[in-house]
Amino acid sequence: MKRTLGVCYYPEHWPEETWEEDAARMAQAGLTWVRIGEFAWSRIEPEPGRLNWDWLDRAIATLGRHGLKVVLGTPTATPPRWMLERHPDMLALDAQGRPRGFGSRRHYCFSHRGYLHECRRIVRLLAQRYGQHPHVAAWQTDNEYGCHDTVVSYSDAARHAFRDWLRARYGTIAALNAAWGNVFWSMEYHDFDQIGLPNLTVTEPNPSHVLDFRRFSSDQVVAFNRAQAEIIRAFSDRPIAHNYMGRVTDFDHFRVGADLDIASWDSYPLGFLEDRLEVDADWKRRFARQGDPDFQAFHHDLYRAVGRGRWWIMEQQPGPVNWAPYNPAPLPGMVRLWTWEAFAHGAEAVCYFRWRQAPFAQEQMHAGLLRPDSAPAPALDEAARVAAELADAPRVHAAPAPVALIFDYDADWAWAIQPHARGASYFALVFDHYRALRRAGLSIDIVGPDCRDFSGRRLVVAPGLMHMPDDLKTALAESGAQVLIGPRSGARDASMRIPVPLPPAFPGLDVTVSRVESLAPGMEMPLQGGGQIRLYREEIEGGATPVLTLADGAPAAMRAGNVTYMAGWGDGAALDRLVTMLADQAGLTRLPLPEGVRIRDTGAERFWFNYNPYAVDTPVGRLDPAGVLRQSF
Amino acid sequence: MKRTLGVCYYPEHWPEETWEEDAARMAQAGLTWVRIGEFAWSRIEPEPGRLNWDWLDRAIATLGRHGLKVVLGTPTATPPRWMLERHPDMLALDAQGRPRGFGSRRHYCFSHRGYLHECRRIVRLLAQRYGQHPHVAAWQTDNEYGCHDTVVSYSDAARHAFRDWLRARYGTIAALNAAWGNVFWSMEYHDFDQIGLPNLTVTEPNPSHVLDFRRFSSDQVVAFNRAQAEIIRAFSDRPIAHNYMGRVTDFDHFRVGADLDIASWDSYPLGFLEDRLEVDADWKRRFARQGDPDFQAFHHDLYRAVGRGRWWIMEQQPGPVNWAPYNPAPLPGMVRLWTWEAFAHGAEAVCYFRWRQAPFAQEQMHAGLLRPDSAPAPALDEAARVAAELADAPRVHAAPAPVALIFDYDADWAWAIQPHARGASYFALVFDHYRALRRAGLSIDIVGPDCRDFSGRRLVVAPGLMHMPDDLKTALAESGAQVLIGPRSGARDASMRIPVPLPPAFPGLDVTVSRVESLAPGMEMPLQGGGQIRLYREEIEGGATPVLTLADGAPAAMRAGNVTYMAGWGDGAALDRLVTMLADQAGLTRLPLPEGVRIRDTGAERFWFNYNPYAVDTPVGRLDPAGVLRQSF
Amino acid sequence: MKRTLGVCYYPEHWPEETWEEDAARMAQAGLTWVRIGEFAWSRIEPEPGRLNWDWLDRAIATLGRHGLKVVLGTPTATPPRWMLERHPDMLALDAQGRPRGFGSRRHYCFSHRGYLHECRRIVRLLAQRYGQHPHVAAWQTDNEYGCHDTVVSYSDAARHAFRDWLRARYGTIAALNAAWGNVFWSMEYHDFDQIGLPNLTVTEPNPSHVLDFRRFSSDQVVAFNRAQAEIIRAFSDRPIAHNYMGRVTDFDHFRVGADLDIASWDSYPLGFLEDRLEVDADWKRRFARQGDPDFQAFHHDLYRAVGRGRWWIMEQQPGPVNWAPYNPAPLPGMVRLWTWEAFAHGAEAVCYFRWRQAPFAQEQMHAGLLRPDSAPAPALDEAARVAAELADAPRVHAAPAPVALIFDYDADWAWAIQPHARGASYFALVFDHYRALRRAGLSIDIVGPDCRDFSGRRLVVAPGLMHMPDDLKTALAESGAQVLIGPRSGARDASMRIPVPLPPAFPGLDVTVSRVESLAPGMEMPLQGGGQIRLYREEIEGGATPVLTLADGAPAAMRAGNVTYMAGWGDGAALDRLVTMLADQAGLTRLPLPEGVRIRDTGAERFWFNYNPYAVDTPVGRLDPAGVLRQSF
Repeated sequence: MKRTLGVCYYPEHWPEETWEEDAARMAQAGLTWVRIGEFAWSRIEPEPGRLNWDWLDRAIATLGRHGLKVVLGTPTATPPRWMLERHPDMLALDAQGRPRGFGSRRHYCFSHRGYLHECRRIVRLLAQRYGQHPHVAAWQTDNEYGCHDTVVSYSDAARHAFRDWLRARYGTIAALNAAWGNVFWSMEYHDFDQIGLPNLTVTEPNPSHVLDFRRFSSDQVVAFNRAQAEIIRAFSDRPIAHNYMGRVTDFDHFRVGADLDIASWDSYPLGFLEDRLEVDADWKRRFARQGDPDFQAFHHDLYRAVGRGRWWIMEQQPGPVNWAPYNPAPLPGMVRLWTWEAFAHGAEAVCYFRWRQAPFAQEQMHAGLLRPDSAPAPALDEAARVAAELADAPRVHAAPAPVALIFDYDADWAWAIQPHARGASYFALVFDHYRALRRAGLSIDIVGPDCRDFSGRRLVVAPGLMHMPDDLKTALAESGAQVLIGPRSGARDASMRIPVPLPPAFPGLDVTVSRVESLAPGMEMPLQGGGQIRLYREEIEGGATPVLTLADGAPAAMRAGNVTYMAGWGDGAALDRLVTMLADQAGLTRLPLPEGVRIRDTGAERFWFNYNPYAVDTPVGRLDPAGVLRQSF
Repeated sequence: MKRTLGVCYYPEHWPEETWEEDAARMAQAGLTWVRIGEFAWSRIEPEPGRLNWDWLDRAIATLGRHGLKVVLGTPTATPPRWMLERHPDMLALDAQGRPRGFGSRRHYCFSHRGYLHECRRIVRLLAQRYGQHPHVAAWQTDNEYGCHDTVVSYSDAARHAFRDWLRARYGTIAALNAAWGNVFWSMEYHDFDQIGLPNLTVTEPNPSHVLDFRRFSSDQVVAFNRAQAEIIRAFSDRPIAHNYMGRVTDFDHFRVGADLDIASWDSYPLGFLEDRLEVDADWKRRFARQGDPDFQAFHHDLYRAVGRGRWWIMEQQPGPVNWAPYNPAPLPGMVRLWTWEAFAHGAEAVCYFRWRQAPFAQEQMHAGLLRPDSAPAPALDEAARVAAELADAPRVHAAPAPVALIFDYDADWAWAIQPHARGASYFALVFDHYRALRRAGLSIDIVGPDCRDFSGRRLVVAPGLMHMPDDLKTALAESGAQVLIGPRSGARDASMRIPVPLPPAFPGLDVTVSRVESLAPGMEMPLQGGGQIRLYREEIEGGATPVLTLADGAPAAMRAGNVTYMAGWGDGAALDRLVTMLADQAGLTRLPLPEGVRIRDTGAERFWFNYNPYAVDTPVGRLDPAGVLRQSF
Repeated sequence: MKRTLGVCYYPEHWPEETWEEDAARMAQAGLTWVRIGEFAWSRIEPEPGRLNWDWLDRAIATLGRHGLKVVLGTPTATPPRWMLERHPDMLALDAQGRPRGFGSRRHYCFSHRGYLHECRRIVRLLAQRYGQHPHVAAWQTDNEYGCHDTVVSYSDAARHAFRDWLRARYGTIAALNAAWGNVFWSMEYHDFDQIGLPNLTVTEPNPSHVLDFRRFSSDQVVAFNRAQAEIIRAFSDRPIAHNYMGRVTDFDHFRVGADLDIASWDSYPLGFLEDRLEVDADWKRRFARQGDPDFQAFHHDLYRAVGRGRWWIMEQQPGPVNWAPYNPAPLPGMVRLWTWEAFAHGAEAVCYFRWRQAPFAQEQMHAGLLRPDSAPAPALDEAARVAAELADAPRVHAAPAPVALIFDYDADWAWAIQPHARGASYFALVFDHYRALRRAGLSIDIVGPDCRDFSGRRLVVAPGLMHMPDDLKTALAESGAQVLIGPRSGARDASMRIPVPLPPAFPGLDVTVSRVESLAPGMEMPLQGGGQIRLYREEIEGGATPVLTLADGAPAAMRAGNVTYMAGWGDGAALDRLVTMLADQAGLTRLPLPEGVRIRDTGAERFWFNYNPYAVDTPVGRLDPAGVLRQSF
């Protein structure tokens, strides 16, 4: 697969007479792809049933004339104002019970059948018209599912759909009452129609109730997306993508991905560092113009898994964004670095968002490749440089990594429902492990919780999987790989209850979690030999061999056979010790890296990236600030 | 009275075949009491009018067979789902006007007459059936009134009941207008039916309006509880208790207690320290596994007063809880210490919450005496050790303490309505005084604001009583005890107005508060000789003798006869100076104690407690970490 | 114009028998003015249509008998309870959609036509009765428009009025769609009646939508006030004032002021410092008892402009207030200092709020000149001292200042809608410039954004004017004065879009803002030679001359002719450098002052003020703590 570049473009925002020059400049910069259409419903169908295709036909023709390939988006993330007159109750309700109104985007409830019907209709019309169009080379469904906290809705539509979902899952109300433990506070139901949504309760609702509601909410996204994908496939053989948003975990990306051909994500390194990471102010300041050195890589590896190998960046930050609390400009060179890093992780394409900075509406402070006055913004040069570099770069077929890291959306919801410690999140726990693996110079494949085939893996890291089906335990135990689990592995059954025998109940591993506790900042528990347990800790007992020990002699990690159980949330030093121990055991070659320097092996090449604002010497030469080195094996 | 232990148990949560063994193990551990039933309405009455007593009969029989005595709870804190179909408007409304829905517990408004009727019905049925049952030895009404902020409701039911309450209090609308000063902003009413609840006003509502609403809300709890107690008494001669929750001050515990035979409270030392105390992070860390050294004692002394001498711990924390921001495990020995401390303060019984950790629903991360797999949790051994120690411990009849501290719920509401300084709370002010008395080794009786008999007291401490009836002032002035009042003593009349002559207007004390101010952190005002005034300060004038003086020479405390007025919120050092001065004046023997070490005299014994995680040497020997020493007089 | 003092008085709060003595004491203290009536609607019209003038007649007569002049307030800020029965939908709705109910004050929506009608009626009745009354010497409309966040309402009345306002502004919906850029996210409308209010959208609403709504909301205040002023003028030739509240920027004070004869404001230096200023805790502590040294002066200069030269203090803080998080007492002497400072800035009158501290209702903890028991509070002496000092003080005709500072409410809204950096506010930016000018000892005139005549000015400072009409640019360019603009000057067109050519597009100034970014704390960018850029920064290019340069050589400020463009938010040191540079260029004499010492020139005199709690030596002698020196030229 050839590595390519692209850009997001909104012909409807600009006078038609500028399209030709825009297209010419895109081609000149070395771009291949142009994504269009995903917010254009009010122009495609200005009034219900009155379709206006002419402008879109001409826009696609103009782009195609310059050799550009179009990614066509379905416009369902921004229903026009008239849609609300047809479906006044289509709005999602927030957790406070307030409708989330018209005037921005994503103002729909995934459970509303009338709106789903409208989406099917417009997608069918779009697919019929452009499914075989020579210049339409790929599709995008909707836009950034879940962005702006839009997965979970407390509407009537959601309530009714949730009851149906529960009926299908449990069959009888008695089964549901038992699964949820509703006897606890006289919460038993006699009928599914008595079940409400778990918001605005007096104190916390039943965690089983909430987890099922979160699963249901995720399933509604899956169904919504599948409806679009099925229609497109009926009329088009071009690949279908969706553009996921960074650190949105409210729905199961793997399950949505199963209905797609390509996974893509929208990478805004500076906004994410400022707004979506549990890091301290010093870290934010240090990487403020470069982004976190591991956050993008994590998502690259995640979406490679979601796309079953095929993945893109659909939106790449090209300059300051508009939406974070603070919005600095990138260090010169970072747009190039981010692009190359995506390719190093196997991306097929990287598309910049957006072509020209919009002078109006919500994103007018979001940079583009061009300024609002059409002069080049700094990113245009960096993009063109990558395009030139790509000309003689080898095609890459990513090799499977020897290290696998399991990521499970269901576990993320379970932790969110029951963190036990303020601020404890599954994502952060997994990401801490990912960072430690990267500090050791390891390349990683992320895999989903349904993975049972670990052949070829030498190390599998699976922290915090609150529910672990038996066949996953077996697959890991028999994988031959070194396996790291804990804390909270198998801590809950499928209905969010504590299983008996107590966790982890892992085959061949005589370890039992006898008690759990959480630790406020300042209560960290030091390990003998370095590192500490923070935030969340388990007391464990059993016959396995202690491999990490607390200062008071209590075991912090135990091991039997190929499986190591970590009984708490390790800090960086503790995780480094675990990674060292297990990587050595697995026969993996570690290459400890300084903070801000990262490597990624593709099979044929090793890439070096420098996220620091200063140069760093490496074994393969000097890495400039924002520098990239490519080393062939 | 013999000191006894007990446990909270939920037979409805477990297979019936486990009950027998559970009961046997309880008896074996030395427990006497088993509280049951308080959340079981959906099992007692699965459908309206269909009563199912069989399982409860069998559960009580099983427990009784093993010599255990049952405390039977009325199940009114958790109305079943069907109740909402009968009374859709029974839910409380929060201050934002949102119904507080089904799905957890305490989802009722105290003012809803339909629900009150249902409660009377179920309590009558329960009392009729078990009022004379040989194994039912005590009653508990409802569960933790006020927990989860459930006293104050902004429902229609509350609005109408409040109007009736105001009619009864004021008689005429003119009297109400005058009492509230409604002329102030043209807030005058012509009819009681025009009066709303004091939420969602443009800026703060009239403080007199709010205070009456808080009093009304408290009275609704009193009436709700009285309705249950009267019915139980009609059928049973067993004592009636309620289990109050720590630091819930939204209703008058004394007035509820007047209808009970026994006061009890639910003691969660680690959760309370983490979640409900105005202490800094260092203090929280220092006592994270032990709890605050004074918080439990304060409540013990409070509920001894509420119960007019008879009080229990109905729920004692046995391990990590589930509900605080961080939930550490107790230091080994603390469960025993907490239990003995309750006895030292006169408790008749200490019951652990709960027997076995529930593997499902909201409290699945709350420890019990048993783990979910029925293996013993660490607390079981500590409980059994106390049971053994109790065998040869003397019965205790607590002697009245020479020091009395007045606690007034009405004053707490008044401070909450008008703190003047961010974070200034009456509870915290009184607790600061309590701490200082305890640091001096003094044992304390808490008394309510209706106390007029101070005979036998040598020191009466009464800070912050914003409203002081004349007969209370007289009783204190004539008590012969040293009396400490201020700040804000008598600062408001019964309708929350500033009285003229200005406060404190205390007989025999020529002190006038001429001006009040509040002080941000960093503005503390040093006292000559040590200590400082913080947060809240008064300028005072008059002919009394200054006994504490600010650096600029202004008086900070003045004294005449037996009465000392403190014109501000003293820090620890200032309060230590006041306590020293007054205790010496009163001829009390002080025993200054190191932080974390506390004593309590019962009359026959002196108990020593060590809340520190290290050993401390005392005049009576070495106190281990979490250690208890009993010294006979 | 003679300088005078006054006081706010509520005869309806006190027994009629006290009025005579109150009036006598006011006169004895040297007061001239008594403001009354503004909250008395429920006493003037206890029931709809039943007018009760007698008490008010007598109160005015009593005051007049003692030579006092009455400022009569219209009572429309506190509609009585019966008004709600006539107009149940008159309440404003907050951004969450909740009605803002009865029980405090300002519970009306400016857009409600029924309530506006009632206001016209009561104002007409009042003006008819007292318009020519010998003792009524001035009027006040309503009270503190905008206080308690009451300008913006999300009611149905506001929605309908907003649509009409938009119809009038845009004519056609197509014009509105184009102006707002509604194509962006398919937000296009077909009819004005489809347009909602910009609250409760899924993510941020269109900034053009919000800005128009803010302008509309401001216009509703202007119209509301104009309705009253027109009626009063029809019956009375006495001057009309409104009392603005400090740092309320939600409506355009200049436009309201255009319908008034006198501007006045309510000055609470200690409350404002604690509650309404972006200063750190050290600064707050340092000036906790004195107030910020520039905040009052800023408002004095602002309202001198709003009143076109005629301005008062209608409410002057006399002691601790009740509404800030902390409410300390003023340093002795500060009440006098604040009063003299107002006169130094040209005030005609300073009225203290209030005569006697109210013992009831919301402001019972707000000090007055008298205590609740009618004894003098400390401020009474300070007021009387000023009255004595005024006897032989010269009348002052303020001379225009050589420095003008432009303040634009529209710019404040634009910054609030699109701060780009958390906490970046236009008010704070302008105030930082004001401080720097004052540190240099300069006296300042504030002017509104409609000012085009800069004759006589030697320096014009105009930071952050996000929209700059062409004729303003021209007027500044041709003014002959040194002009300082930037950051964000002309950054948006009248519809909140980025203009092309890019900003600032200032005649004669070859500077283009090529990119903007925002900087988190810790990311400050040092300037060569001292100072730094913080929070908000622009990259600029062009042929103008760099006058401030960043460490990396990029220009931070550029200059051409008389215009200097500052490309970011300068810290104190940077602004001091700019002021030095431009004042020297303008030939202004600077007098660098120590923090806390400020001067103000009136034309005939120079006043020195010491906000420090310690004495300071000045060229004209020793300035006591809270001291005032008057130096004749």
